[in-house]
Amino acid sequence: MIHAEVIAIGDELLYGHTPNTNSQWMSAALTNLGVKVIQATTVRDEEAAILKAFEDAEQRATIILITGGLGPTKDDLTKPLLAHYFNSPMVLHAQALADIKGLLKSKGKALTPTNKAQAILPEKCTIIRNELGTAPGMWFEKNEKVFIAMPGVPHEMQKMMLATVLPKLKNTFELPSIYHKIIKTVGMGESGLVDKLQPWEEQLPPTMQLAYLPGIGEVSLRLTAIGSQLEKLQEEVEAQVQQLTLVAQQYIYGYDEDTLEGVVGSLLKAQKKTIAIAESCSGGYISHRITRIPGSSIYYQGGIIPYQNEMKINLLAVSTEALHTNGAVSEEVVIEMAQKVRKKFKTDIGLANSGIAGPSGGSYKKPVGTVWIALTDGKVTYTKKLQLGNDRLTNIQLTAIALLNLLRQTLLTHTTQQGCSSV
Amino acid sequence: MIHAEVIAIGDELLYGHTPNTNSQWMSAALTNLGVKVIQATTVRDEEAAILKAFEDAEQRATIILITGGLGPTKDDLTKPLLAHYFNSPMVLHAQALADIKGLLKSKGKALTPTNKAQAILPEKCTIIRNELGTAPGMWFEKNEKVFIAMPGVPHEMQKMMLATVLPKLKNTFELPSIYHKIIKTVGMGESGLVDKLQPWEEQLPPTMQLAYLPGIGEVSLRLTAIGSQLEKLQEEVEAQVQQLTLVAQQYIYGYDEDTLEGVVGSLLKAQKKTIAIAESCSGGYISHRITRIPGSSIYYQGGIIPYQNEMKINLLAVSTEALHTNGAVSEEVVIEMAQKVRKKFKTDIGLANSGIAGPSGGSYKKPVGTVWIALTDGKVTYTKKLQLGNDRLTNIQLTAIALLNLLRQTLLTHTTQQGCSSV
Repeated sequence: MIHAEVIAIGDELLYGHTPNTNSQWMSAALTNLGVKVIQATTVRDEEAAILKAFEDAEQRATIILITGGLGPTKDDLTKPLLAHYFNSPMVLHAQALADIKGLLKSKGKALTPTNKAQAILPEKCTIIRNELGTAPGMWFEKNEKVFIAMPGVPHEMQKMMLATVLPKLKNTFELPSIYHKIIKTVGMGESGLVDKLQPWEEQLPPTMQLAYLPGIGEVSLRLTAIGSQLEKLQEEVEAQVQQLTLVAQQYIYGYDEDTLEGVVGSLLKAQKKTIAIAESCSGGYISHRITRIPGSSIYYQGGIIPYQNEMKINLLAVSTEALHTNGAVSEEVVIEMAQKVRKKFKTDIGLANSGIAGPSGGSYKKPVGTVWIALTDGKVTYTKKLQLGNDRLTNIQLTAIALLNLLRQTLLTHTTQQGCSSV
Repeated sequence: MIHAEVIAIGDELLYGHTPNTNSQWMSAALTNLGVKVIQATTVRDEEAAILKAFEDAEQRATIILITGGLGPTKDDLTKPLLAHYFNSPMVLHAQALADIKGLLKSKGKALTPTNKAQAILPEKCTIIRNELGTAPGMWFEKNEKVFIAMPGVPHEMQKMMLATVLPKLKNTFELPSIYHKIIKTVGMGESGLVDKLQPWEEQLPPTMQLAYLPGIGEVSLRLTAIGSQLEKLQEEVEAQVQQLTLVAQQYIYGYDEDTLEGVVGSLLKAQKKTIAIAESCSGGYISHRITRIPGSSIYYQGGIIPYQNEMKINLLAVSTEALHTNGAVSEEVVIEMAQKVRKKFKTDIGLANSGIAGPSGGSYKKPVGTVWIALTDGKVTYTKKLQLGNDRLTNIQLTAIALLNLLRQTLLTHTTQQGCSSV
């Protein structure tokens, strides 16, 4: 495989305040292209250190991607150092100047001497056009190796990679085909999933790699195949995903870019169903996750956050008796909340939760992390008790995932059972 | 200054799926200690590459922090390679074995041969105890340089850094004092702030560094002073912050770890005031930000998310006439929403928003990104129209920040004017 190194230049990346998202993004893009990233180096704004990084990378890798240090200030050393490294005079590149003028014009700005200086670049490089900023990228070739320098502004670099660098790398090098598939699961922890999937994992061909990517309340599996024919790889991976589905279907909610709230939204749209939610311990977070999906107003009618008991009574008409007998964090109350919010908003489905998010507010009988969730479609009601930990934000997130997953499972059951509501 | 390099080991960091949070966290911790991080290197699980990284780092830096590759599998090369690098035999470390046994016992697990092998470590290293996992850390010294290896699991590494590594580095090296202060602002963009603060920035002493850290809807300023006496540095920085306050007080909402919702919560608690909110375009996000703060149930009474016009009428009793005449995204409707939610929840203050989050749903008169926000205390009502962009999630976030900031400003005015409500 072709080896690559990514180099990020800038003191600010070494202070620890600014995350180095560029190196990660470029590594993912190269990996998806079938290039093996063997090292990532972050180097300070210092001439000798940057030149040493260029030299070392050239020893190790065939493709060297560089970001940062292309601005117009004197801290920005990348351009003069590349000119030095490739022993190339600086010249005005007409295309670069035209692009800078065009960009400034579109923003109603005039060309300054500083802007113009950004079009003066090493003669030996091919310009990589920058549609979103005034610093052009540079492509150098030397001894069958390529050095590519791009600005450190993430959206400028990403656009240049997608529009120019990745296609050009594909044309320049003979790269293997690569096929990735991410399988997204919910409802089982990583170690449980590892045990459950062991027989499936053991029969995977040696050309296929499996990685577990655990998140909060979710685990993603990444299956990667490398070979020569993309179509064949795709077929092989999809066949393995089919096999996986036989053992873990109930946990798989989607693939690749899918989100739990997006998948639930698609199911609701397909089934022309509407929802409303009474969020107590999740405090609006579930509604936020649902409504951040464009077009969610088709199925999401609204929500109530009755953060105080009095509001559960006044706004949702939860019965005083249920509250007094069982307390707010109880199956009885959460069922009433789901039923009443469904009626209030006149939806097909009502959802609710009530719990102790923490870090305080727990008792011996109901410790912090005790959460009840409920779903009702007017005929059937499902409830579940969660016993979570002590971290408030994690409890809120896990409550959201549990309730979204309950909704997903209910919608799937209705689909497969064609309208039968008893599960 | 003492120079450091951080090395992260692991193929998974070079695929681009897993962010390298360890290098960032360690860089921030070292910077705060007064150590200059000069390079960050991420290297694959390959013997020669790892050894080369050790050698290169030793050339460049005095302190070398290493994470990853300490697990019990054969991919985990860090331990044998360090033994090789320091030419040290492997021995069983009694303290390490006792710690591993203790940790397993607390989880009700028995010692396996794999666990026991983790206590076999190079003789020349000092053990760094790991309270949260079974892989001990290692501290090596050679030619007045130190190599410190820790597991790649973030919370294990962080705990070891805080408990052992940082205090020991402070004792081992003569480090300068360093004082950081982060000033958090809201309500003005980065370039406006740069212009406004230029005179202040120009009079800063050369020993003090200023950095702008822009975020969505917020800009943080980081002021850093390095010297010999911490108390003196603190005094100097605080004096500069005082000066800054004179020119930018209205934009400064807090310092260091403060959040907008946390600051607003403290003001509400101090003034013994309660709030409720009717969220339309923000879909629950503002309630989520408020309720993720522990103890927010003292001042946050609840919220309504009337995502459909009908619900604005039925649940909030917004007048049909106001809706029909002006449309849901209008000053009239958002005022009614704030007033009605305040009454429903019997709170001191009612908040509301209504807008077009996008990406679709706009019109010529009300394009995507048009948002109205309102706040009322029953006597005085404030409104504001925002004209945001096309990105749904950004619009939701900017709406939240604008409304939280309006609440902050209102509460501050009430404090300074001692209860007078007309602003």
